[in-house]
Amino acid sequence: MNAEIITIGDELLIGQVINTNAAYIAERLTEIGIPVIRMVTVGDDLATMLESFRAAWERAEVVIVTGGLGPTHDDVTKTAVCEFFGTTLEANEEVRKNVERLVAARNAKWTNASEEQTMFPAGARVLLNRLGSAAGILFERGNRMMIALPGVPYEMKGIVDEEAIPYLRTKIRGPAFRQLTLRTTGIAESRLAERLGDLEQLLQGARLAFLPSPAGVRLRITVVDPDPVRAEQRIHQVETRLRNIASDYIFGTGTQELEEMLGKLLVRKKLTIAVAESCTGGLIADRLTDVSGSSAYFRESVTAYSNTAKVKRLGVPEELIREHGAVSREVAEAMAEGIRKTAGTDIGVSTTGIAGPDGGSAEKPVGLVWIGYSDERGTTALRFQYGSDRRRVKERAAAAAMELVRRKVKKR
Amino acid sequence: MNAEIITIGDELLIGQVINTNAAYIAERLTEIGIPVIRMVTVGDDLATMLESFRAAWERAEVVIVTGGLGPTHDDVTKTAVCEFFGTTLEANEEVRKNVERLVAARNAKWTNASEEQTMFPAGARVLLNRLGSAAGILFERGNRMMIALPGVPYEMKGIVDEEAIPYLRTKIRGPAFRQLTLRTTGIAESRLAERLGDLEQLLQGARLAFLPSPAGVRLRITVVDPDPVRAEQRIHQVETRLRNIASDYIFGTGTQELEEMLGKLLVRKKLTIAVAESCTGGLIADRLTDVSGSSAYFRESVTAYSNTAKVKRLGVPEELIREHGAVSREVAEAMAEGIRKTAGTDIGVSTTGIAGPDGGSAEKPVGLVWIGYSDERGTTALRFQYGSDRRRVKERAAAAAMELVRRKVKKR
Repeated sequence: MNAEIITIGDELLIGQVINTNAAYIAERLTEIGIPVIRMVTVGDDLATMLESFRAAWERAEVVIVTGGLGPTHDDVTKTAVCEFFGTTLEANEEVRKNVERLVAARNAKWTNASEEQTMFPAGARVLLNRLGSAAGILFERGNRMMIALPGVPYEMKGIVDEEAIPYLRTKIRGPAFRQLTLRTTGIAESRLAERLGDLEQLLQGARLAFLPSPAGVRLRITVVDPDPVRAEQRIHQVETRLRNIASDYIFGTGTQELEEMLGKLLVRKKLTIAVAESCTGGLIADRLTDVSGSSAYFRESVTAYSNTAKVKRLGVPEELIREHGAVSREVAEAMAEGIRKTAGTDIGVSTTGIAGPDGGSAEKPVGLVWIGYSDERGTTALRFQYGSDRRRVKERAAAAAMELVRRKVKKR
Repeated sequence: MNAEIITIGDELLIGQVINTNAAYIAERLTEIGIPVIRMVTVGDDLATMLESFRAAWERAEVVIVTGGLGPTHDDVTKTAVCEFFGTTLEANEEVRKNVERLVAARNAKWTNASEEQTMFPAGARVLLNRLGSAAGILFERGNRMMIALPGVPYEMKGIVDEEAIPYLRTKIRGPAFRQLTLRTTGIAESRLAERLGDLEQLLQGARLAFLPSPAGVRLRITVVDPDPVRAEQRIHQVETRLRNIASDYIFGTGTQELEEMLGKLLVRKKLTIAVAESCTGGLIADRLTDVSGSSAYFRESVTAYSNTAKVKRLGVPEELIREHGAVSREVAEAMAEGIRKTAGTDIGVSTTGIAGPDGGSAEKPVGLVWIGYSDERGTTALRFQYGSDRRRVKERAAAAAMELVRRKVKKR
C-alpha cells in the first residue's frame, strides 16, 4: 500500500508559500507504514488537476489531494473530484450541521459561501473538519481511495489526525515499515561513510540514507518486514551496530536538536554555562536559548567582536592578542576561561575565527576557527577549518562548539 | 517559456525535510518571467527519476532538477541525467579545479569521493558551484533545457543566483516581465493593505502581492508589457507611489536584509553599536554579524539572561529589577544605556521579554517584549506584544529592534 500527494495552489507554483502540507501528510503516512512514492504540485486549473488525478490514481493506492476546497472562485477541487468520479454535488446534512455550528460559534452571518460549503460530492464519505467549513472528501473504489483536504494547514492537520489516519490504519495490508533516524554531528558525510565501512554487512537488508546539513549528518535506517515485531528488532539491531561504530558522533534521534540534548545533559549534571563568541557572533547563545527552560543552565554570553571587548569583558590579556592574534589557540582559551570566571559558571565555551568571505591570510585562511572550552579541571582549544561562506562558517562553528561541550560534559 | 521543478530525495517523501528548494527556485523563475507549471518530488530511484524527467521534458521548456548530486551511494541524479541524454561521465577539468580549490581551502584530504565529484556528464555545460563540490549540470537540446542542481540549499541557491538565472535571462522570449520587491517591516499585512487604499488606482494594471514573514511583509510588484522600456517605467511608477505612501516601513528591495541596510546606514553615519539582549538570546548580534564587514560598526553584545548578568555586565540597578521586574520599560532602558556606556559605542539597543511558551502572567503575558534604544541624546523603550511561539517571538523582536535603530539613525 503506497500513497501519492497532490498539492494544489498557484501560490505554491510562484514560490510564495512553502509546501509544508505535503511534508506533514508524508510524515503521518510514513509513521503508519504507508510510503509516499511521489508528491506533485499543480495550479488551480481543472484540466491539469484532472490529469494529475488520473496519473496518481494509476500509480498509488492512496491519493491525497490538498488545497482548492474553499469557497472562492479559484477553488475548483470539489468540481474536479466530482468530475473524476462521475458524480455531482448534493446538499449534505452532516456537512451542513458542521457549517452551522461554526457560523454560530463565530457569531457570523449565513452567507452564500456558507451555503456552498454544505454541498458535497454524492457517494463520498465525509471527513469531518472541526476547525473549518470545508469538509474532507473520501472516495473509495475497490482497494484504491482518494482523499481531498482543505489547504489551510491547521484544518488539514485536524482532518488528517482525527479522520484520515485512523481510517487508513484500518485498511493497511502488507509488510511492516519502520524507520529510525540517528542524528550525528562533528563528522562529514564522506568520513562517516568511510567509518561505517561495509554497509551491506552492517545493514543486513535494511536501508540507510545519509542526510547532510550544516548541523550534522542524519542517518536514516529503514526496514520493511512482513512481521512487525521482527521489523522493530531488526531496526534496533542496525541502530546498535551504528552506535557501536559511531557513538562519538551520535547525539540524538528523530527531530532532537543538539542544543536540546546538550540542555538535558547540563540539567542532569547540574551544570551552568556561559559563552564568549567572536566569529559566531551570538549564534551559539541564540541556539542555546531556543530551548524552552534554557535559563536553568544558560547564564549569559558575550559577543566580543572587538579586541577591546575581549580584553575588558573577558579579561583576555592584551599582550596575548598582540603576540598571537585574536584568532589563535591562546586567545580562544583565554576567552573560554574568561567568560567562565566573569560569569561564575561551571563551563565556559568560546569561538574566535575568520568567518569570511574576506579577512583571511595564508597563515590564517578564511574559515579558520578556534573553539575553546574551560571548566574547573582545565582549559583547552581545538582548531577547525571550514569553507568561505560566512553563514555556513558560523553555523558549523556553533554546532562544533556545542558538540565539544556535549562530549566534555558526557565524560564527567 | 515555462518550467517544471523536480526535487529528488527520500527525505522529502517521508516528510522529514520540508521542500524549501522548490519554492526558492519557483520564486526566482517567476521573478524573471518564467512561470512554473508543476513541481514533482520523487525518491532516489533511477527508474522513477527517468520517468519523471521524460514527463517533465514533454510538458516544460525548462526542467530543473535538485538533489541527489552528492558523492554517496544514494545519489543517483548524475547517472540519471547521463542516461536521459544518452551520454556518460568524463573527467572535467573545470569541475576538478573547483573541487581542488575547496579541498585545499578546507585543509581536507583528497578522497575517492572528491575524485568522483570531478566526473561530469560529457556534452553538458558546467554551472559552477563555488560553495560545494557538486557542480550544476545544464543540458540544452533545441529550445529545451534541463538543469540539475545539488540539493543542499545554500549550494543550490548559489548556483541558481550566480549561474542558472543569468543564463536563463539570455534565453527569454515573449513580452517583458518585470518584478520588483519592496521589503517592509514593522507593519502587519492588513494594516499595510489599509494604508495603501485603492489598489486598482495605485497599480494601473500592475499586479501586487503581499508576502508576509516574521521579518516583515514583502510587496512584490509585477508588470507584463510588450515593451521592455515601458515595463521598466511602469514598475518604477508603482514603486514611487508605494514609497510615497509607506516610506516609513520600506527598508530595502529584493533580497536586501534589514541588518544589511542598517549596516550601510551606520557606516554612512559613522556610528558604532552594541547590543544587550535578554529574550532574543543573541539573535540580534547573530543577524548583525551575518553582514560581512559588520566589525566596522558592531563592537560587542551581551546576552544577559540572568539578572546577575544584567546587573554586573550592564550596570542595571538591582532595585530597578526588584521594583519593576526584569521585563519592564525601566530595565529595557537601563540595559540599552548600560551597554552603550560599558561598550563605549554611539548606540545601545536592548530587548527584555517573555519568549515563552511558558513564564507569562496576566500582567506580563507570553510574547511581551520591551525594546530599549539609547544614544547620546537620550534613552527610550517601546512595548511590543507577540504570540507564544518562542522562535517567532525571538525573530519578530530582533527585527523590531533593528528597525527601531534604523529609524532613529535615519533621522539623525
